[in-house]
Amino acid sequence: MEIKIVRKVLDVNNTMAQQNRNLFAGKKVFVLNVMSSPGSGKTATLVKTIKRLLPEIKCAVIVGDICSTLDADRLSVTGVQVVQVNTDEFGGDCHLAAHVIGNAAGSIDLDSTDLLIVENVGNLVCPAEFDIGEDARVVVLSVTEGEDKPVKYPLMFRVCDAALLNKIDLLPYLEYDRKAVVKNILQIHPGMSLFEISAKTEEGFDPWIAWLKEKVKKKLKN
Amino acid sequence: MEIKIVRKVLDVNNTMAQQNRNLFAGKKVFVLNVMSSPGSGKTATLVKTIKRLLPEIKCAVIVGDICSTLDADRLSVTGVQVVQVNTDEFGGDCHLAAHVIGNAAGSIDLDSTDLLIVENVGNLVCPAEFDIGEDARVVVLSVTEGEDKPVKYPLMFRVCDAALLNKIDLLPYLEYDRKAVVKNILQIHPGMSLFEISAKTEEGFDPWIAWLKEKVKKKLKN
Repeated sequence: MEIKIVRKVLDVNNTMAQQNRNLFAGKKVFVLNVMSSPGSGKTATLVKTIKRLLPEIKCAVIVGDICSTLDADRLSVTGVQVVQVNTDEFGGDCHLAAHVIGNAAGSIDLDSTDLLIVENVGNLVCPAEFDIGEDARVVVLSVTEGEDKPVKYPLMFRVCDAALLNKIDLLPYLEYDRKAVVKNILQIHPGMSLFEISAKTEEGFDPWIAWLKEKVKKKLKN
Repeated sequence: MEIKIVRKVLDVNNTMAQQNRNLFAGKKVFVLNVMSSPGSGKTATLVKTIKRLLPEIKCAVIVGDICSTLDADRLSVTGVQVVQVNTDEFGGDCHLAAHVIGNAAGSIDLDSTDLLIVENVGNLVCPAEFDIGEDARVVVLSVTEGEDKPVKYPLMFRVCDAALLNKIDLLPYLEYDRKAVVKNILQIHPGMSLFEISAKTEEGFDPWIAWLKEKVKKKLKN
């Protein structure tokens, strides 16, 4: 019974996601859905990413949290449009659903946006199940979280196009098996794009920014 | 409509949780529900905790993951009874529901168990909503996750009796404001018990073990 209910919710979500996709296609906006556990460094990564993309790529952000505007406050220092969604207004949802993104996009000037970044609620499980009409999905995994997460949360790694392995500045202080995490990721998602980065030092940002820029520009041209 | 459905699921869960509570009361088993983000160090913390409780407190563990038996393998080195629940068998659930705990408890010799530890699915959101019939709830928060998590995931900190701030061995390498996280936790949950620990070095374990032992012994006496 429970599974049936979930299916219905997901069917409605897929319809709304298609509406979002049509809207974003018409406006030539590339949508990036960024997901991770709480505390992986999504916000810090996005602040540094946006600073490197500007002014060439015009960015906007929808940031989802159950409560607070802490992340929106941090993102707004980049000067781009930021919309904070608090899911506690509709029951403390653990993910951003497509209709929430559709509503939030109404507050953004899409005509002057090339890249709309959605910073999802910190959760390595549920957001992976909800299509929001995005063009690409990225999962951020902090190296402090250990090597086993791709095996334990496979759906997230299966649905994402790229994984950002963040906080590599802490590697000297961790017992971390880099080969094991790469093997685990590629076992779940063969060929997945991987970028080892530090949002603190910006080490490893060049290939990640190049990957993202190429994807955004491809959509702008079409 | 969605909220109504969620309510119904939670009502059924509360009924099952009460059945669990009656079972555990009859068997004089103290049940500890341990929750956190993925990668906070729950399993490492529990391995060290169990080793310190044995042989005085007889322990057993139910460990929840969407996939894999990695955590059960790590916990089984303690020699205690370990039951792995994989939620992908019922739709990849992001939490352990009361009926799942009831079923898993059937595989455990409760007559020779004082403390049943439930290591929940790594998720700072959904498990907080599901009563499993436990006596106490603990949230593990890695210091690498930042200071803002109590404010962003308030329900988890509200429903838990204690917070374990883990990985304090990494503090010299982080920009971490200890006072801010304590303030954030106590703002959400005044009087919450706090233990700063390192599952790696076992620093800070004494007060945490004393807190847990006292709670377990109190139930055993009644």
